[in-house]
Amino acid sequence: MTTAQKRIMVIHGPNLNLLGKREPDIYGHTTLEAIDAEIAEKAKQLNLSVTFFQSNHEGAIVDIIQATMDHENGLIINPAAYTHTSVAIRDALQMLTIPIIEVHLSNIYKREDFRHRSLTAAAATAQVAGFGARGYLLALEGLMHLLATSS
Amino acid sequence: MTTAQKRIMVIHGPNLNLLGKREPDIYGHTTLEAIDAEIAEKAKQLNLSVTFFQSNHEGAIVDIIQATMDHENGLIINPAAYTHTSVAIRDALQMLTIPIIEVHLSNIYKREDFRHRSLTAAAATAQVAGFGARGYLLALEGLMHLLATSS
Amino acid sequence: MTTAQKRIMVIHGPNLNLLGKREPDIYGHTTLEAIDAEIAEKAKQLNLSVTFFQSNHEGAIVDIIQATMDHENGLIINPAAYTHTSVAIRDALQMLTIPIIEVHLSNIYKREDFRHRSLTAAAATAQVAGFGARGYLLALEGLMHLLATSS
Amino acid sequence: MTTAQKRIMVIHGPNLNLLGKREPDIYGHTTLEAIDAEIAEKAKQLNLSVTFFQSNHEGAIVDIIQATMDHENGLIINPAAYTHTSVAIRDALQMLTIPIIEVHLSNIYKREDFRHRSLTAAAATAQVAGFGARGYLLALEGLMHLLATSS
Amino acid sequence: MTTAQKRIMVIHGPNLNLLGKREPDIYGHTTLEAIDAEIAEKAKQLNLSVTFFQSNHEGAIVDIIQATMDHENGLIINPAAYTHTSVAIRDALQMLTIPIIEVHLSNIYKREDFRHRSLTAAAATAQVAGFGARGYLLALEGLMHLLATSS
Amino acid sequence: MTTAQKRIMVIHGPNLNLLGKREPDIYGHTTLEAIDAEIAEKAKQLNLSVTFFQSNHEGAIVDIIQATMDHENGLIINPAAYTHTSVAIRDALQMLTIPIIEVHLSNIYKREDFRHRSLTAAAATAQVAGFGARGYLLALEGLMHLLATSS
Amino acid sequence: MTTAQKRIMVIHGPNLNLLGKREPDIYGHTTLEAIDAEIAEKAKQLNLSVTFFQSNHEGAIVDIIQATMDHENGLIINPAAYTHTSVAIRDALQMLTIPIIEVHLSNIYKREDFRHRSLTAAAATAQVAGFGARGYLLALEGLMHLLATSS
Amino acid sequence: MTTAQKRIMVIHGPNLNLLGKREPDIYGHTTLEAIDAEIAEKAKQLNLSVTFFQSNHEGAIVDIIQATMDHENGLIINPAAYTHTSVAIRDALQMLTIPIIEVHLSNIYKREDFRHRSLTAAAATAQVAGFGARGYLLALEGLMHLLATSS
Amino acid sequence: MTTAQKRIMVIHGPNLNLLGKREPDIYGHTTLEAIDAEIAEKAKQLNLSVTFFQSNHEGAIVDIIQATMDHENGLIINPAAYTHTSVAIRDALQMLTIPIIEVHLSNIYKREDFRHRSLTAAAATAQVAGFGARGYLLALEGLMHLLATSS
Amino acid sequence: MTTAQKRIMVIHGPNLNLLGKREPDIYGHTTLEAIDAEIAEKAKQLNLSVTFFQSNHEGAIVDIIQATMDHENGLIINPAAYTHTSVAIRDALQMLTIPIIEVHLSNIYKREDFRHRSLTAAAATAQVAGFGARGYLLALEGLMHLLATSS
Amino acid sequence: MTTAQKRIMVIHGPNLNLLGKREPDIYGHTTLEAIDAEIAEKAKQLNLSVTFFQSNHEGAIVDIIQATMDHENGLIINPAAYTHTSVAIRDALQMLTIPIIEVHLSNIYKREDFRHRSLTAAAATAQVAGFGARGYLLALEGLMHLLATSS
Amino acid sequence: MTTAQKRIMVIHGPNLNLLGKREPDIYGHTTLEAIDAEIAEKAKQLNLSVTFFQSNHEGAIVDIIQATMDHENGLIINPAAYTHTSVAIRDALQMLTIPIIEVHLSNIYKREDFRHRSLTAAAATAQVAGFGARGYLLALEGLMHLLATSS
Repeated sequence: MTTAQKRIMVIHGPNLNLLGKREPDIYGHTTLEAIDAEIAEKAKQLNLSVTFFQSNHEGAIVDIIQATMDHENGLIINPAAYTHTSVAIRDALQMLTIPIIEVHLSNIYKREDFRHRSLTAAAATAQVAGFGARGYLLALEGLMHLLATSS
Repeated sequence: MTTAQKRIMVIHGPNLNLLGKREPDIYGHTTLEAIDAEIAEKAKQLNLSVTFFQSNHEGAIVDIIQATMDHENGLIINPAAYTHTSVAIRDALQMLTIPIIEVHLSNIYKREDFRHRSLTAAAATAQVAGFGARGYLLALEGLMHLLATSS
Repeated sequence: MTTAQKRIMVIHGPNLNLLGKREPDIYGHTTLEAIDAEIAEKAKQLNLSVTFFQSNHEGAIVDIIQATMDHENGLIINPAAYTHTSVAIRDALQMLTIPIIEVHLSNIYKREDFRHRSLTAAAATAQVAGFGARGYLLALEGLMHLLATSS
Repeated sequence: MTTAQKRIMVIHGPNLNLLGKREPDIYGHTTLEAIDAEIAEKAKQLNLSVTFFQSNHEGAIVDIIQATMDHENGLIINPAAYTHTSVAIRDALQMLTIPIIEVHLSNIYKREDFRHRSLTAAAATAQVAGFGARGYLLALEGLMHLLATSS
Repeated sequence: MTTAQKRIMVIHGPNLNLLGKREPDIYGHTTLEAIDAEIAEKAKQLNLSVTFFQSNHEGAIVDIIQATMDHENGLIINPAAYTHTSVAIRDALQMLTIPIIEVHLSNIYKREDFRHRSLTAAAATAQVAGFGARGYLLALEGLMHLLATSS
Repeated sequence: MTTAQKRIMVIHGPNLNLLGKREPDIYGHTTLEAIDAEIAEKAKQLNLSVTFFQSNHEGAIVDIIQATMDHENGLIINPAAYTHTSVAIRDALQMLTIPIIEVHLSNIYKREDFRHRSLTAAAATAQVAGFGARGYLLALEGLMHLLATSS
Repeated sequence: MTTAQKRIMVIHGPNLNLLGKREPDIYGHTTLEAIDAEIAEKAKQLNLSVTFFQSNHEGAIVDIIQATMDHENGLIINPAAYTHTSVAIRDALQMLTIPIIEVHLSNIYKREDFRHRSLTAAAATAQVAGFGARGYLLALEGLMHLLATSS
Repeated sequence: MTTAQKRIMVIHGPNLNLLGKREPDIYGHTTLEAIDAEIAEKAKQLNLSVTFFQSNHEGAIVDIIQATMDHENGLIINPAAYTHTSVAIRDALQMLTIPIIEVHLSNIYKREDFRHRSLTAAAATAQVAGFGARGYLLALEGLMHLLATSS
Repeated sequence: MTTAQKRIMVIHGPNLNLLGKREPDIYGHTTLEAIDAEIAEKAKQLNLSVTFFQSNHEGAIVDIIQATMDHENGLIINPAAYTHTSVAIRDALQMLTIPIIEVHLSNIYKREDFRHRSLTAAAATAQVAGFGARGYLLALEGLMHLLATSS
Repeated sequence: MTTAQKRIMVIHGPNLNLLGKREPDIYGHTTLEAIDAEIAEKAKQLNLSVTFFQSNHEGAIVDIIQATMDHENGLIINPAAYTHTSVAIRDALQMLTIPIIEVHLSNIYKREDFRHRSLTAAAATAQVAGFGARGYLLALEGLMHLLATSS
Repeated sequence: MTTAQKRIMVIHGPNLNLLGKREPDIYGHTTLEAIDAEIAEKAKQLNLSVTFFQSNHEGAIVDIIQATMDHENGLIINPAAYTHTSVAIRDALQMLTIPIIEVHLSNIYKREDFRHRSLTAAAATAQVAGFGARGYLLALEGLMHLLATSS
Repeated sequence: MTTAQKRIMVIHGPNLNLLGKREPDIYGHTTLEAIDAEIAEKAKQLNLSVTFFQSNHEGAIVDIIQATMDHENGLIINPAAYTHTSVAIRDALQMLTIPIIEVHLSNIYKREDFRHRSLTAAAATAQVAGFGARGYLLALEGLMHLLATSS
């Protein structure tokens, strides 16, 4: 890794490890492994270093966000269910000074009412939602842009 | 275990490990170990295989629900406090295609207002509440019935 | 009837007389007569005396609950639509000192929002919901248990 | 224009004509003309035909969405203030069968409470928010992807 | 440790491990280690035994509260983000019979609206808020007083 | 009965027929029969003719209110549970032009929240609450006064 | 009655039996008998058989709706006060597969707030409101049209 | 036009110009042109003069309502999306002294929650909803009746 | 005064000193002086000692309630505007152990919505409302009854 | 016009063109033309240049506010119905850096509840309400003062 | 004082005695004494007699409003904090028949949410807000106009 | 008093003068005089000058807070009932620049719902609640700390 290479953390929230295995009509057929591979591929083209993390544990996601702080240049996070319930993740995100992109696979406004409320959104820099797995690649590109313009 | 034997997972949520040790006027005097023994006894009579799990961690409960998916025929869950706050457990339950029985020891409508709202209920097949520890045995029976009629 | 024989009242609320005849995707194909026969059968095995009552009238249900007071040992009630609107039934139930099991055929949390609020639940001892007609038999068993442990 | 060339409509809602001229701390320094030029440039690379439209009139936006119906392959819309108040635009969008990307320059969750509610979001396919003017280019790319996978 | 020595548990909730490292305008410049050292110092003067615990995991905090039950004489807890979302911690606290002091570094009424609602407060004995790190020492003193008057 | 004798209707709502028999800590030990006897006694002193009616049926109460219209000079009603749920009784009361006194045995503001809302109160002329059975006699006296001043 | 003759049930809810006798400024001067005569007259012209029913009892209205099921081709109902409070009538209506027209004499949006909420409306096919007694004739005509186009 | 001929204005709100072309399962297959032709036909039979107006612009609808004031005898309006959001149209309608019939093609109570609230309804004389295109003809007839009885 | 003579305090809240002088259509034509004279007259008949107090100051009313504590046998209070806003008066009333009758001249359910909420009602023993000035005499009688039955 | 002459824009919202012609009990008898003449007269005395604009179109009002930006020294606006529904006008006003006076003819707190909520008020500098047409002249004077003290 | 001279009362609510001494960024630098001097100066020009009153006591403000009734021709009041909490002041204002102008120094819509709700506004004739101390002079002028047109 | 001696004001809100005399299960047995003596004792040790004030009058508390401004170094206040209703006290506190400690004897989250909302909390620097009378001493110590670190 050269000194110029930027580092990106990608965090997947609860139940996303089952992507492509359950409820494909909502979440599509692509597995999380396939998504991560695509992200890795694109990151390589962009000369980025990427780290992946998935957990069903709210606390583990807070831990990894904290660990991200001094070692990464940007964060892409899909908080999934914790989007709507976690003040702890919100607080952790708010302590970061790097750009944060929140990704949702589906358009959450087409789902149940309680999914329209977001606790984490105000702590993110930007959002991408409704593009399915492709949303992560758009987020990566958008993040590149934010890094370029803020540096 | 014969091929005909059905497998059931029983999940106990946060603080239930203290059953029978604290606040007996709300939760009764029976310990969780005693309850599990009763369930195991009844399961044996019904030629069922049962696995037990208790955790105070929301993420750990999501993990075990996911692990349940391809190995169990039915799920009995008492989400306890997470009944009212966990979208992650709801999402995990919603990915299951096996019958799910939600059990509550007490009648939650006799307790504080915030316990009247349930996030997990819509993801379960059926509910049993207010029978104390006996509710698990009724749930087991009801589950047997659902398995019999859906197969 | 010997002195030892316990007496149970079973009350069916509005529109349940049409069970098995309308909207089978919500309520199943079994008629109320068939359900009552199953309950009677099981009651016989358990040496219980059972009385059945169905009405579409809120006031008639209050009348029968009052009449139940001094002659029955337990009550199983499916208040149906009145679950969500009747303070009168709640008040009548609250005057009883015998165990009361509230039964719902479907999981009311999977239906419209206004069905998530229950006025009668706080006046019942326990709930069974989502097992279809089988719920009555589980309620009967649970009631037996409550009678046994409280006597 | 060859037969293969896809057509995209880009609609900018009220007050966006002043972009880059007012409140740069919220909306940035880039003018709408500059943004449209960037979009046109990128569209050319992608062999897309793009049409631009801006209006402060809710009705005029409904008119242009209707006109879009049979002539365009995709729609990018930033409804601005009408995001939060227009059922008419939502209804018009809901009649379209082409992919719709909703773009917001800023992260609306960091602004006033009444901007957290969106009437149009449920009628869009996907959202991109918080990337400033760059969001339009990400939307264009995402739209290309949606067109590719749905055709 | 003599038999007379009282034992106190100090629990720090999510993100408090970053105290003094991030957002000093909200949380001050003192690190958690420094705070714990101050508490330990004061505890020594008061002839108290103190144990410290910090976690970002809701479940881990429930675990440690349960473990506290039979071994400690008092509890000081700063539930941080979980103040506003955790019924599980509330339930665990409610099972304790020892005095519980809830500490907040900042005056939560000066922050966002969703931080004005507290789920854990009703399960605590007393609160200290807005004194920064000093609040822990006041809590310790107050706890001493409660232990003295209740014994 | 002389031509000068005024006629009063007294209506008791659902479950009041059990007064003095159930939950005496809320409703007192006096039976409805005893109350009616007291009212009749006092009415005799005041040279009033009184008719009594009790029903658990909302519709029956509407029927009797309608029947009251052209034959009575005043109405005393304790709608009990229907206070909080019946628009039909409210509508019937609103059609009367005679004075209506609403009586409640207990102070409803000391009971559950849903009892603080009254649908019928706006259709009555006056209220008496919290005096137990004595409230009816006060209502009778107040009614006499209203009849005297309005004639 | 020839085989071709369609059968219509007309149900009037609580207090409508007093039409034309009370509060004419809200409900007009026409009596229910006169309205029914007009409906009968028009039905005769249209070769329809009409049955009339009025009750102040929610349960009786549920009974008659159930009885309607297999004998009538269409239903016109003015649920009056029960519009706003009866889930039981809604449930009964929802079991019908014939067209249902809900009629209101006055424009309920000009009256008290609690009359703006309708529980029965979602179970009806169509509504006519604000035309006074004439609304029933319009409903009859509209019903004819629905029967014609659906048969 | 003889002096006796009454003049009626018919206003169609946003997106209704697409009737019969989009979402036929909600709005039916008839086009607005066909509806207007039917209305015109019926108006001719009734010796009425009718003017038609459709716009997607809230302001244009306010303009035409104002223009209606001194030249028309009655107004039929389907405000569509503006039903739920326009105080301006409500204010304009409230200034009219002629009868106003509000028409909705579908039963809005069967659609999304935000469509259950109506701002314009209180300013209309009467409503017809759920009859599809036929509702306009019923409205015309009802309007004739109102004109006849008020003159 | 003999030892047997009971002492009653009568407190009139803000603006009641203007009774009979302003807005007679709401409050009647009787002045506060006349009301107090009537109360005094009746008290004399009942061998009661009465003290009167009126103030527009919330704090002064709290002062007098406190002073009442050890010197009076009963309290009649019309908190007027403070009914809806004063927690301080509620707290003071709650400290009394003597019976408290809350009086309102008008039926507050017929007035503005914010007058339907009562803070003081839960701290009173009973209420009398809607009888105009006569309500005080009924309250006095009811108070006598409560004193008689509780002593 | 000398260089010293200040320029003022006066914007009248929807339905204000009918002032003095409709509902005089709410809005008074003065026409908009008369009001503008009075304003012009007063402006002349104050050596101000005034431009008038009225529209029923939300978008047209946004257009004119934008056009105002670089050519006017102050703005007087009566948004009428758009006060309560227009985020677009609020956004446009917020982009201005000149003083803005919001005028309402009537006291909106005496009208319907939905008129108590204002979306535009937070974007104005000051408000004048309830003085009828005279309010514009007071606004003009107040604006003069603000211009004098801020320059 | 000549008979023609009109009398005006000016009431300043709680904390306004500190004007110009605290929080000048919200309330400006002018003291209350300076404001009163300006008002007095202007009143003299207009041949008005003015009385000033300031109090931090809700009850004292009610007292002075009552005293105003028969001796003043108009009232200017800045209820400050009591705007949002005092039903007592509202009731007192409502008893006046003279014109009342409510003044606020700042635009309350730019401040905290709880300041957007006004209890006193509905009892005033008109409002002036956001002009700082100058608002009182505008109010005086507006009051003169109201007195002129109503006499 | 030496120049170094700091001055502290202690304000007790409504009904606190009855401490130790009423409802000891909520407020304890210690009288306010005893509490003040304890505070005075501790203040002496800390070389502080303390002034005490108690009032049941909201306005009097505002007066004393204002008087505090230029003469005291810190403020300890228990607003009691006014915590939940007084914007005036909040405004007065907000004008102070010295540290303010809000004290509550009991844990207000264990009491009625309306006591969970605090208007004054946001204007205080810190809170101490639930320690009974001891809370004042903790507040004094905390205040000392705040004075030390801010000077």
